[in-house]
Amino acid sequence: MGLENVRYVELPIIHDRRGNLTFIEGNKHVPFDIRRVYYLYDVPGGAHRGGHAHRQLEQLIVAMSGSFDVVLDDGQRSRRFHMNRSFYGLYVPRMIWREIDNFSSGSVCMVLASEHYDEADYYRDYQEFRVGLGLPAVPEDEA
Amino acid sequence: MGLENVRYVELPIIHDRRGNLTFIEGNKHVPFDIRRVYYLYDVPGGAHRGGHAHRQLEQLIVAMSGSFDVVLDDGQRSRRFHMNRSFYGLYVPRMIWREIDNFSSGSVCMVLASEHYDEADYYRDYQEFRVGLGLPAVPEDEA
Repeated sequence: MGLENVRYVELPIIHDRRGNLTFIEGNKHVPFDIRRVYYLYDVPGGAHRGGHAHRQLEQLIVAMSGSFDVVLDDGQRSRRFHMNRSFYGLYVPRMIWREIDNFSSGSVCMVLASEHYDEADYYRDYQEFRVGLGLPAVPEDEA
Repeated sequence: MGLENVRYVELPIIHDRRGNLTFIEGNKHVPFDIRRVYYLYDVPGGAHRGGHAHRQLEQLIVAMSGSFDVVLDDGQRSRRFHMNRSFYGLYVPRMIWREIDNFSSGSVCMVLASEHYDEADYYRDYQEFRVGLGLPAVPEDEA
């Protein structure tokens, strides 16, 4: 469940001069049932949303308006994904640490998630996340 | 299944100075499983999205960015709902004719739907919709 399982998902677009339409169906465009939809808005330009990872939850992240970066880390490698199109989703599997930053003013970040909210599913500490992966905790002076 | 079953749904907000977060869970904040998510974007200011109704599909409509109006009609009465907050959804049950208009430039309209796409579930003709409700078709000179 490393970064090699992360991928951009090109979503369908119905083009129309009155506006474009994109749709996402559970178990079709994403490999899970959509149990929860959440979104970040009223985000100040340049804001940063902090790190966490999920034991089981999978998700698809979409820039509904504006742009931001998603930084993903599988405990061994880290990669930055720039999001600025409503018709590209970023699929994030379980056990990936993620942060979101570099928000443009007025951007909207939508996330489709495979599970209802469950605090027990979260890693909120990066060291615990590494231990959960079976990796040694990073020495304090490198953390 | 008339207009009396339409309602605004006040969605939860987690306030944060780095941006606000709203979440919607299937069978909790909406009375259905979320099988499909779709959204309208790149909408020119003042655009109008045309009428249809669904035999079975229920939906929640949210203004993710900007504003627009949703005009709902149950065959006997019509009502206009102004949408301009990310934390209010409009619940639309089955057998309600709907149009969306008065889009602000750059607005994003998100819809959570209870079913996958099925063209057979649509009424695209208002007269057929009225007949489906057991109402007489509107005389041509009043239509």
